[in-house]
Amino acid sequence: MTRLEQQIAFLLEIDKVKHIYRQNYLADGKRHENDAEHSWHIAVMAILLKEYAHEEVDVFKVMTMVLIHDLVEIDAGDTYAYDTEGAKTKREREVQAANRIFGLLPKDQGEYFRRLWDEFEEYKTEDAKYAHLLDNFQPFLLNDASKGVSWVEHAVKKEQIYKRNEKMCETSETIWEYMKRVIDENIKKGNIKDMGV
Amino acid sequence: MTRLEQQIAFLLEIDKVKHIYRQNYLADGKRHENDAEHSWHIAVMAILLKEYAHEEVDVFKVMTMVLIHDLVEIDAGDTYAYDTEGAKTKREREVQAANRIFGLLPKDQGEYFRRLWDEFEEYKTEDAKYAHLLDNFQPFLLNDASKGVSWVEHAVKKEQIYKRNEKMCETSETIWEYMKRVIDENIKKGNIKDMGV
Repeated sequence: MTRLEQQIAFLLEIDKVKHIYRQNYLADGKRHENDAEHSWHIAVMAILLKEYAHEEVDVFKVMTMVLIHDLVEIDAGDTYAYDTEGAKTKREREVQAANRIFGLLPKDQGEYFRRLWDEFEEYKTEDAKYAHLLDNFQPFLLNDASKGVSWVEHAVKKEQIYKRNEKMCETSETIWEYMKRVIDENIKKGNIKDMGV
Repeated sequence: MTRLEQQIAFLLEIDKVKHIYRQNYLADGKRHENDAEHSWHIAVMAILLKEYAHEEVDVFKVMTMVLIHDLVEIDAGDTYAYDTEGAKTKREREVQAANRIFGLLPKDQGEYFRRLWDEFEEYKTEDAKYAHLLDNFQPFLLNDASKGVSWVEHAVKKEQIYKRNEKMCETSETIWEYMKRVIDENIKKGNIKDMGV
């Protein structure tokens, strides 16, 4: 295989991520969102919301990171944010997927994407923290826009959302304040359960 | 409206691009692709195929350009590449859409996206040419992978593909040579009509 053929094989393989449906709905509530759509959306958000990150971030790197962060789900599937059973095996399933999928690329490009995916998963650098903020904030916005249908279906509690976003205020006070306001509104509407915290 | 609220209004508005379906199918031929998926895919391609562009390109800028290049279709709809009737009014419909959609953003960000969209549409800079190469090459790869079903449905001729991609060899000889080979294979399979050129 030529280098170009390897790259094309990867590009056709990752087309499958368009069939990986997530728990959240689109803004109009008409259907679930898939991973390609989600990744596109947060890449656009990476550009627009940079000003709210407390620390300097490399937007180009973050965009690349978020565009590829969910490719492992082609093999490992989508694990819902509040699925504690699935979470136990998630890491192992995703590492195997990363080995296979990034392994389709020419070595230099596969290693580059793998490093970015590892950095995202480790959740330590400012770039990774900003990427996670976007990754959480995007479905949050869609859940709110779609009248909380996904929260209602999963009987999500305020405590769970707070726990999942516990690092967010370190990354952006403004975004976290906005989220807290929207959570309170959705508790009033009965979309989120007010238990704990 | 606060600045953040304006940005969120834009982000929820552009969610609609996930409902704009294109003429081409996904690689497995199971359904049509939508604009968000297409834009995600070519943003990943922008990173991986940079080495084939004859001239230096700004990949960060190209990624941003391709992520937003189809937002105008929220109002203007998808005009098929070989639809000559639709092409007549396309420009006017898309300019009005750009005014409305980018106008939702805070002024500085709306103007930034608008400049990138204008640059893409003008098709003159090296960055815009590379973005168009990706925009054409991605559905081409999916059409080939999905056994040419979209080409067959629209009775596409070799001449039309050559005409649409006439600037491609200026941007990347390697990609154009690859495409010509795949076109010939698909003529042999009966998926593309061999007329003219």
